[in-house]
Amino acid sequence: MSHSKKPPLILGIAGGTGSGKTTVAHSILDRVGSHRISFLPQDVYYRDLKEIPLEERAKQNFDHPDSLETELMIEHLRLLKQWKAIDMPQYDFTQHIRTDHVLHIEPRRVIVVDGILIFAEPALRELFDVKIFVDTDADIRFIRRLQRDIIERGRTMDSVIQQYYRTVRPMHLEFVEPSKRYADVIIPEGGMNVVALDMVIARIEELLQE
Amino acid sequence: MSHSKKPPLILGIAGGTGSGKTTVAHSILDRVGSHRISFLPQDVYYRDLKEIPLEERAKQNFDHPDSLETELMIEHLRLLKQWKAIDMPQYDFTQHIRTDHVLHIEPRRVIVVDGILIFAEPALRELFDVKIFVDTDADIRFIRRLQRDIIERGRTMDSVIQQYYRTVRPMHLEFVEPSKRYADVIIPEGGMNVVALDMVIARIEELLQE
Repeated sequence: MSHSKKPPLILGIAGGTGSGKTTVAHSILDRVGSHRISFLPQDVYYRDLKEIPLEERAKQNFDHPDSLETELMIEHLRLLKQWKAIDMPQYDFTQHIRTDHVLHIEPRRVIVVDGILIFAEPALRELFDVKIFVDTDADIRFIRRLQRDIIERGRTMDSVIQQYYRTVRPMHLEFVEPSKRYADVIIPEGGMNVVALDMVIARIEELLQE
Repeated sequence: MSHSKKPPLILGIAGGTGSGKTTVAHSILDRVGSHRISFLPQDVYYRDLKEIPLEERAKQNFDHPDSLETELMIEHLRLLKQWKAIDMPQYDFTQHIRTDHVLHIEPRRVIVVDGILIFAEPALRELFDVKIFVDTDADIRFIRRLQRDIIERGRTMDSVIQQYYRTVRPMHLEFVEPSKRYADVIIPEGGMNVVALDMVIARIEELLQE
């Protein structure tokens, strides 16, 4: 509200699937306190696919930037930067549609955004004050994704491998990996890297005390 | 002296020639205050070549880990970690010998070490609490080295290129680049990267306040 206040700081955490970026984001929220940070995961901005038949939806390329409604995410970040609240969409990943619910997000001094493709689009990228890229070897990332998709999403090993070859890997090489170049800081091995996390959190705490 | 005190934190800044690592180290010293940090540059630990004829000395491979007296640097870091002062050697880079002088270094809460090869040797590497690698594209690094060696060291372009092909580049690929894997944090583009520097400094300030 107060226009004399400094705009919030927007911190982006990118990295490939299974890199540990979400663990980094959640560690920040846990340690700094989620009431002191606004958190936007990029994947709630997937386009609503309700117009196309359900059996067609799963065949979409969810690893391409066009599968995300980046215009809306940009608008939301601009609003938060002006200390205005937003209504963040909620996504149903089984149906590939937006739910009827939104999550009301209040602006805070620090805004954390995570997603595989947040540094891939110039108009989105330039909104970040701090760009962190979580960099983990591709084999480790594949293993983590395989385990997660089998355990949490009931997928088969074959379907995970097929999707990996068909879209995950080519889109990673085309969009995610080149976006690393725009990072201010690269964190190897994601969530387990306490030394790097201590550094990020020290900076956030410093900003929150200003 | 007081054995109840926590050991100092040792922060290492590695990166290839021309990466901007020394600019990072000096920015930390400037902003945190050099009286609050003990600073050890790896290149004062080059071996004393006084036993070999002067004209032979310049032909040595100064980019290979064996050209450094790493045992002495390890000993010094262990002493500092026990809150004991050290006498750091001083090196004459024109003669490739240690000078008769030493620099008395008092232990401080934070010890900053910089050098191209500080993460290449396991026994040295394990002494660091925070490992930062400054990562800059090879062409930019070459250009910076070329300009520096011509302006500051009176070298010719041909001699810089020759040394680059003969030792700098192969040793970088063999020892410096693979040591990046051990970094806790990778900082692209060195000294000009204010966002990353703010993060490193916030962490150091936090440690100094503990």
